[in-house]
Amino acid sequence: MSHATPADPARSTTPGRVYLDNGGRAPWHPLARQAFEQSLADGWADPRRLHAEGRRAARLLDAAREAIAAVLGARTQEVHLTPGHTASLHAAVASAAAARRRAGSAVVVGAVERAAVLHAARLAGGGSAGAGGVAGTGGSDGTAEAPGPVPVDRFGRVDAEAMAVAVRAPGVALAALQHANGEVGTLQPVGAVHDAARAAGVPLLVDAGASVGHVAVPDAWDLLAADPADWGGPAGIGVLAVRQRVRTVPVGPEDEDPWAPGGVSVPLAFAAAVALQAVESDRVAQEARRRALVERVRAEVARIPDVEVVGDPDGRLPHVATFSFLYVDGEALVTELDRHGFAVGSGSACTASTLEPSHVLAAMGVLTHGNVRIALDRSTTADEVERFLAVLPGAVARVREMLGVGGL
Amino acid sequence: MSHATPADPARSTTPGRVYLDNGGRAPWHPLARQAFEQSLADGWADPRRLHAEGRRAARLLDAAREAIAAVLGARTQEVHLTPGHTASLHAAVASAAAARRRAGSAVVVGAVERAAVLHAARLAGGGSAGAGGVAGTGGSDGTAEAPGPVPVDRFGRVDAEAMAVAVRAPGVALAALQHANGEVGTLQPVGAVHDAARAAGVPLLVDAGASVGHVAVPDAWDLLAADPADWGGPAGIGVLAVRQRVRTVPVGPEDEDPWAPGGVSVPLAFAAAVALQAVESDRVAQEARRRALVERVRAEVARIPDVEVVGDPDGRLPHVATFSFLYVDGEALVTELDRHGFAVGSGSACTASTLEPSHVLAAMGVLTHGNVRIALDRSTTADEVERFLAVLPGAVARVREMLGVGGL
Repeated sequence: MSHATPADPARSTTPGRVYLDNGGRAPWHPLARQAFEQSLADGWADPRRLHAEGRRAARLLDAAREAIAAVLGARTQEVHLTPGHTASLHAAVASAAAARRRAGSAVVVGAVERAAVLHAARLAGGGSAGAGGVAGTGGSDGTAEAPGPVPVDRFGRVDAEAMAVAVRAPGVALAALQHANGEVGTLQPVGAVHDAARAAGVPLLVDAGASVGHVAVPDAWDLLAADPADWGGPAGIGVLAVRQRVRTVPVGPEDEDPWAPGGVSVPLAFAAAVALQAVESDRVAQEARRRALVERVRAEVARIPDVEVVGDPDGRLPHVATFSFLYVDGEALVTELDRHGFAVGSGSACTASTLEPSHVLAAMGVLTHGNVRIALDRSTTADEVERFLAVLPGAVARVREMLGVGGL
Repeated sequence: MSHATPADPARSTTPGRVYLDNGGRAPWHPLARQAFEQSLADGWADPRRLHAEGRRAARLLDAAREAIAAVLGARTQEVHLTPGHTASLHAAVASAAAARRRAGSAVVVGAVERAAVLHAARLAGGGSAGAGGVAGTGGSDGTAEAPGPVPVDRFGRVDAEAMAVAVRAPGVALAALQHANGEVGTLQPVGAVHDAARAAGVPLLVDAGASVGHVAVPDAWDLLAADPADWGGPAGIGVLAVRQRVRTVPVGPEDEDPWAPGGVSVPLAFAAAVALQAVESDRVAQEARRRALVERVRAEVARIPDVEVVGDPDGRLPHVATFSFLYVDGEALVTELDRHGFAVGSGSACTASTLEPSHVLAAMGVLTHGNVRIALDRSTTADEVERFLAVLPGAVARVREMLGVGGL
């Protein structure tokens, strides 16, 4: 444990610990922290107010939107700030579906979307929030049933052909497809699906919450949600871009920002924007560096007995690697690795608090237990990765022994 | 302009400027800023994760909930953190109404509640979000119509008798009443309404977003929403306390925190809790000090010609004062005062971005134009208030002159 990680003022970790769970909630980029402190001094007032302090906060907010828009390839007025990524997804689905209610309000989704998208789609489609599967009833006007979630292959990649067929069904108001799956790293065919959706006159919501800041932002979207907490910005703020051509119906009170009733925190917004600019400035180099590390991890882990290396080997996020070990309990493996100084994720990346098996892994038809995900930060070193690889096989063996399957 | 305000590291203001718009979005308490920085170092990880970093973040989050619970007079497990005050109100109304849907889902509200409450009540009651007035249709089972919003008197105080009658109507799932109106300062009869609601078996949601941190927290509630941004904590986080006896139905995906799908920012939560403890520690002294300043302001402003001093003269928040000037445009007066170094609010405190007249002032039957609200911070000095009083009459006169009514 003599290889301490480089000092990072933005996070405190016990010396020697290796943090490999940087997906969804990554440590703040150091520049985000600086930006936050500066904008807390200058942008504490309510940006909706008319006085000098309010106008100064509004200018900071506009600057944040402009910077984010430049990275996303959007116009400033197309970029909205929300209370968080989940709120972005809910608002996008609800308001895009509501705008087309007369033609039906079914939402076509991929099977490995985030729980928030699946849930919002069920609500918009008129299904019960508690029911399993996307309802897709085609709205209350009795149009034909829309299909359920579009299946994925064993790598977690959505069937673009099936999705193209699904968006052409009557009563479809919106299609939703993630850019990449944060749990297994697989990139989705957003280009092909966007072409098909456009031909059908259906807007496409792209959940880029796991990809922005890590790979190039796609331009194949009508609505795009991105997550500052994933790229090294703060939690408590979300980004939703909506092309000006897309019809939406505000779902909140008329006299409020429809995407953030009650407003957002200007310092959080500004910190999110600065973090995005910072990670974009060396994204290509970081992408190559982390991709090489992840390739090494996937190749080495494949040599451990009875393991499945999960997700698309080629079309994937550069910083995420996921495995499922036979005869292993995922929670136990996380705990065992934690005891040895390594923090990793397990099961469903989005719902690690529950003991439910991941709906993503289930939809892929791979092992849903014994699952571990690592996500490399920009500050993760090759040395840290090597130490992880040195410790992992023993940790897996010990957990198997505890479960009495050591001899298998 | 030689009377500079005391240096406050948590906000930067042009020297000599007087900021009197500390309602809804107040500057951070200096201790909140310290707490935020410390918990950003220790609590950056996702508190839902199982590893050491996640558990450390979870402990900070629990500590925040415990501290907030102590101030609110609630149990720790009754206190939930949300993405913000508006989200708290929406979730509280939707989930409490959904839990009783079989008996009807009408929500009884006061006429001067926040737009978010009125909106959520319309949605829960089955009314159109866009329609004016609370629907209160009593759900889809065809029970009797619930009454519209409960009227207020000229001080903005809800008619407790009328509200008691309203909660006894069939099909009522929830009653919602603010503790104090943030726009005009009037305290509401939450005790009497809570008694009536309890007798009718209807839970009461109390919106304490304008009062917590300024006056004693009421104990007459079943659900209570409070707003950190109003008490000197951060925006981007909200507090919702729900008594354990209250039935609610989570409105999000089953495997997520029903009150904050996607989770909250731990540093924001911790900063909110520390700010609340800090303001509670000298609340009584600050309440008396600010009440005396507000009394002085209300008395002095009443001497300006053609003015209405708005809100209950006795049962009121200690730090808020509101006036409506005849023959004055509110926006113009805000701008004129701003030019002379004073930041104040105008119109509807919650929706100052719109040019719509305030629904609060309209419900009270007072002048809806020419309206100005001041809200004193804990750091506001008597000297600042005197300077404001010295400048206000001239500013009003100049705006009247601009409108060509100077001679009236």
